[in-house]
Amino acid sequence: MALVDRKLFGPGPGNPYPEATSALGQPLLGHLDPVFLSLMDETCDRLRTVWGTTNARTIPLSATGSAGMEASFVNTVSDGDVVVVAVNGLFGQRMCDVAARCGAEVVPVEHEWGAPVDVDRVLSAHPSPKVVAAVHAETSTGVRSDIAALGAGKGDALLLVDAVTSIAGIELRADDWGIDVGYAGTQKCLGVAPGLAPFTINDRAFARRVEKPQSWYLDLGLLGGYVGEASGSGGRTYHHTAPTAMVASLHAGLGRILEEGLENVWARHAEAGRLLQSGLLEMGLELFAQEGSRLPELTTVKVPDGVDSAAVRKILLERHGIEIGAGAGAYAATVWRIGLMGHNARPDAALLALAALADALAEVGWKP
Amino acid sequence: MALVDRKLFGPGPGNPYPEATSALGQPLLGHLDPVFLSLMDETCDRLRTVWGTTNARTIPLSATGSAGMEASFVNTVSDGDVVVVAVNGLFGQRMCDVAARCGAEVVPVEHEWGAPVDVDRVLSAHPSPKVVAAVHAETSTGVRSDIAALGAGKGDALLLVDAVTSIAGIELRADDWGIDVGYAGTQKCLGVAPGLAPFTINDRAFARRVEKPQSWYLDLGLLGGYVGEASGSGGRTYHHTAPTAMVASLHAGLGRILEEGLENVWARHAEAGRLLQSGLLEMGLELFAQEGSRLPELTTVKVPDGVDSAAVRKILLERHGIEIGAGAGAYAATVWRIGLMGHNARPDAALLALAALADALAEVGWKP
Repeated sequence: MALVDRKLFGPGPGNPYPEATSALGQPLLGHLDPVFLSLMDETCDRLRTVWGTTNARTIPLSATGSAGMEASFVNTVSDGDVVVVAVNGLFGQRMCDVAARCGAEVVPVEHEWGAPVDVDRVLSAHPSPKVVAAVHAETSTGVRSDIAALGAGKGDALLLVDAVTSIAGIELRADDWGIDVGYAGTQKCLGVAPGLAPFTINDRAFARRVEKPQSWYLDLGLLGGYVGEASGSGGRTYHHTAPTAMVASLHAGLGRILEEGLENVWARHAEAGRLLQSGLLEMGLELFAQEGSRLPELTTVKVPDGVDSAAVRKILLERHGIEIGAGAGAYAATVWRIGLMGHNARPDAALLALAALADALAEVGWKP
Repeated sequence: MALVDRKLFGPGPGNPYPEATSALGQPLLGHLDPVFLSLMDETCDRLRTVWGTTNARTIPLSATGSAGMEASFVNTVSDGDVVVVAVNGLFGQRMCDVAARCGAEVVPVEHEWGAPVDVDRVLSAHPSPKVVAAVHAETSTGVRSDIAALGAGKGDALLLVDAVTSIAGIELRADDWGIDVGYAGTQKCLGVAPGLAPFTINDRAFARRVEKPQSWYLDLGLLGGYVGEASGSGGRTYHHTAPTAMVASLHAGLGRILEEGLENVWARHAEAGRLLQSGLLEMGLELFAQEGSRLPELTTVKVPDGVDSAAVRKILLERHGIEIGAGAGAYAATVWRIGLMGHNARPDAALLALAALADALAEVGWKP
């Protein structure tokens, strides 16, 4: 099959950092090789930095970000537990489904898509939930919500946060903000191919975990024998075969980020997003996400009236090799999602996205 | 971190086929890119060939082989269902745990480790199980069991088979043998890095599936919208972000296998295993797996009396860059596992494993 070289400017995956791609081609290591175990330990350390946590139990789960969501719920929620979910997009909706499969009494707090989470409504939705769950950066709408405020008001509840599209892209401080359980993905601002779910859980949540969760694969009690908890003890228990190539790639991607400096990486995402969003507005397009809550790394823009969303995306893909995303859910045909994440969070990528979109819009006859 | 180049002669992962490694370094594709969707479809076709099936629902699950086990049970077993499990090693034991977490009434049929599954005992263990489960090639013991005989006698039960260490290494004919649900891993004889679980389920099992399984991530009803069932219809539903780099690598590894010819690949594994096992016997070592049921791709050998298993493995790793496996479970210190799988199923690898083991045994002072 001929190589196809895309600019991945959709909602993810983005183009990985070159260091992350190079690592995939290195000789494979066994999952119990001492060299690999050191690399895994260092990967967990690096993940702690991007999560903003000191949690011992910070690991890359061996599946994609959606499995991180599942791991978060199956390890903390069992029959009859009350789970308040802030729903302001597709991933909040999904949390309700996943929590319900754990037997939770789900209390969804619905929001208009495009708006951030209303912290007061979420915190007053139930007097004593076991878990309050929210999405930090909604991939479906391009909206950022205030996790720190949820953490400050959570009371006795555990705060469970989706950081799939925020990690290593915008400010994220799990410990300072009171996040008890968090999951992410590798294929967004971390700049690594999809396939792993960076996960973190603090002692408070671990102490209240489900002793024998319905998932064997994602059972943190079993996983602890292989990573994290066993560090330094010399004893590692086999649980499953870690995806060693992907872990090596994550290790390298994180190395690139920390070498640049995490706050510099955040600033680079902010600048690329600012360039893109101001350019889109100058072109006469409208942004979808509410002003003041727009993610720099993932921009949602309204498809202009009379323009065929798919036709424009096809021109971008076929003429320019650029992938952007359709909208999600009810907005599939009326919103585009443009991601400048990880390696793509650069001014030149922003300019290229703008120029190519202008070209495609002209091609379909749109005038502002 | 300096590159370390190992010969992975343990129970897996093995060294990938070069084609599979090269594919990991190719430009990343998005999971909804038409080029990627074609590649995914072709990957599923190729998987059908190595499974020996025409099942439409034949897909690479986005997690490792152990998640394939979990997917098999959560989609077929719910509260109170009777599951007969043939237990002749670690992975049969694990099946019992995973099935129990689905609420199954588990009927384990215990065997001595090193022996193949006793088909008559398994089939007579319960008059009307919903599922009969067995491991085709026990990675913990190096033993092959007769799946065709289980299929011939299964009656109304669904036959659920672990093919993690058999797929693309020894004869496997899912449809001819009556396998209803099967899972595998990529890191053994398929010659690809760990990270995906090739999975297949036939119409008979799919019709009897759990409508809303406890796992959202592994829910076949949801997964069907993205792969397999939607093929040709043009409509693909987003479920989760497929690990596109790993799928491209699997596609390439399968391409290599099918170019060589599946039966030729089986013959290559048989020959490498024969060379290794006859060489070990000539050295005066004893094999662990019962004669007549020995896997060519994974050889279990008894650690000679008075020899420190770990010391020998350390010499192999540090002097020769060769990884072999310790034993599993109660045999951790008394058995070695030597895998010649996928790209390593070659005469030169067999000779090297023998020569290096002889050197290490001499180093620790062992004489036959």
